[in-house]
Amino acid sequence: MKFLRCYHENKEYYGLLENESVKCLSNNFLYNNFEVIKKANINDIKILPPVLPSKIIGIGLNYNDHIQEMKDEKPSVPKMFIKPSSTVIGPNEPIIYPKHMSKRVDYEGELGVVIGRVCKNVSVDQAKDYIFGYTIINDVTARDLQSIDGQWTRAKGFDTFAPIGPFIETEVDPMNLKITTKVNGQIRQNSTTSHMIFNVYELVSFISQIMTLYPGDLIASGTPSGVGGVEVGDVIEIEIEKIGKLINPVKE
Amino acid sequence: MKFLRCYHENKEYYGLLENESVKCLSNNFLYNNFEVIKKANINDIKILPPVLPSKIIGIGLNYNDHIQEMKDEKPSVPKMFIKPSSTVIGPNEPIIYPKHMSKRVDYEGELGVVIGRVCKNVSVDQAKDYIFGYTIINDVTARDLQSIDGQWTRAKGFDTFAPIGPFIETEVDPMNLKITTKVNGQIRQNSTTSHMIFNVYELVSFISQIMTLYPGDLIASGTPSGVGGVEVGDVIEIEIEKIGKLINPVKE
Repeated sequence: MKFLRCYHENKEYYGLLENESVKCLSNNFLYNNFEVIKKANINDIKILPPVLPSKIIGIGLNYNDHIQEMKDEKPSVPKMFIKPSSTVIGPNEPIIYPKHMSKRVDYEGELGVVIGRVCKNVSVDQAKDYIFGYTIINDVTARDLQSIDGQWTRAKGFDTFAPIGPFIETEVDPMNLKITTKVNGQIRQNSTTSHMIFNVYELVSFISQIMTLYPGDLIASGTPSGVGGVEVGDVIEIEIEKIGKLINPVKE
Repeated sequence: MKFLRCYHENKEYYGLLENESVKCLSNNFLYNNFEVIKKANINDIKILPPVLPSKIIGIGLNYNDHIQEMKDEKPSVPKMFIKPSSTVIGPNEPIIYPKHMSKRVDYEGELGVVIGRVCKNVSVDQAKDYIFGYTIINDVTARDLQSIDGQWTRAKGFDTFAPIGPFIETEVDPMNLKITTKVNGQIRQNSTTSHMIFNVYELVSFISQIMTLYPGDLIASGTPSGVGGVEVGDVIEIEIEKIGKLINPVKE
């Protein structure tokens, strides 16, 4: 099933997508007690970020081909960083280029893992039960600030640097999904989630041994090779098989 | 004024401390429309973390003496990291030593800056108007994982690694406050906030040029020299002049 959040007739709704129709729900889809209270055509809604995470945990260097292009070393454990909740925007909203601090802003197309239940110290085998579904996240990164700062917090923490959506797909195997990123229609990243070093269940288990994950929390599971810079005026489109397309323009 | 959050007669309250008496408030003190609805003796309440921040922005290497003991270099801009909201605990709650991953856990006594108003792109001169007050934070750090990971997220992100409180003091000059940390009664850190490299207003201004700060968000403004390890059974006490004492035991 494909869940979403939307704005319709001056109100925010949690929703369920069926073909071109959106069923507006009485309650957050992360909790099971919802009913359908309204229907809308997908052309009559504005799609919002599908979750408002209390935290986004990013994973660096989780695809072999990306490690090679960054001339970096394969990590022995998942390399974590955090994007604050203030980075989140929805589909079609603009990514704001922070020209006052950066001269190089990169897209990073990634599979987003949405947590469904409070999750602490779970094993790799149990991890699947704690995942609500999968979405798309653009882990936008001011590449020049990563090396200047050492810590990645500033580079990945600007407002608008986490476009998410449009949907959360709950019935998909995350182990082998095609992922592509286009800039102005040209393919820049073209890989599959089967190339991850630490797979989705290993990531959830590892992170849960450090910090409690809450429903709606999001894991940005790493980006494949092909990262590169964008300019003001560009349009970034990330597509993940069976989930959808996340499109955002870059503005000043 | 000293604000707090507390648990009293099976309910949570925002409160205002006056001598030994706590005035329980009708509403969050971060918003101005509160009334006193109840009074309690301080011995009849359990003190909770005074804020539930959407994010905690930590600043590394912000005291000259601490940079020397870490044999590190003075940063040209504030060195930011993020502690997720899942790290927060209140006064007297135990810090849980993550023996499954770390063999070296350090205290770091720090002045905590509590944001009062939505804050984006503010100047150093304006910063004061966006600060609600000051509290104490122990930026607990698994020191061995900092160098293993490079990124500090795991080292500083374990559950219970951000004790906060007990109070938020709204009427204090943050520029020259004595700060001491004791372990089992012995002084380990003894400095003043006047030794910060980037002062509180410079930090708020800098961070606000990257990410929007929301009411209740917290800045951990860096730790002076004297950091060191603790063991299970130790008790850590951080005192900041005019604010109070934050005491937490270390447990397994």
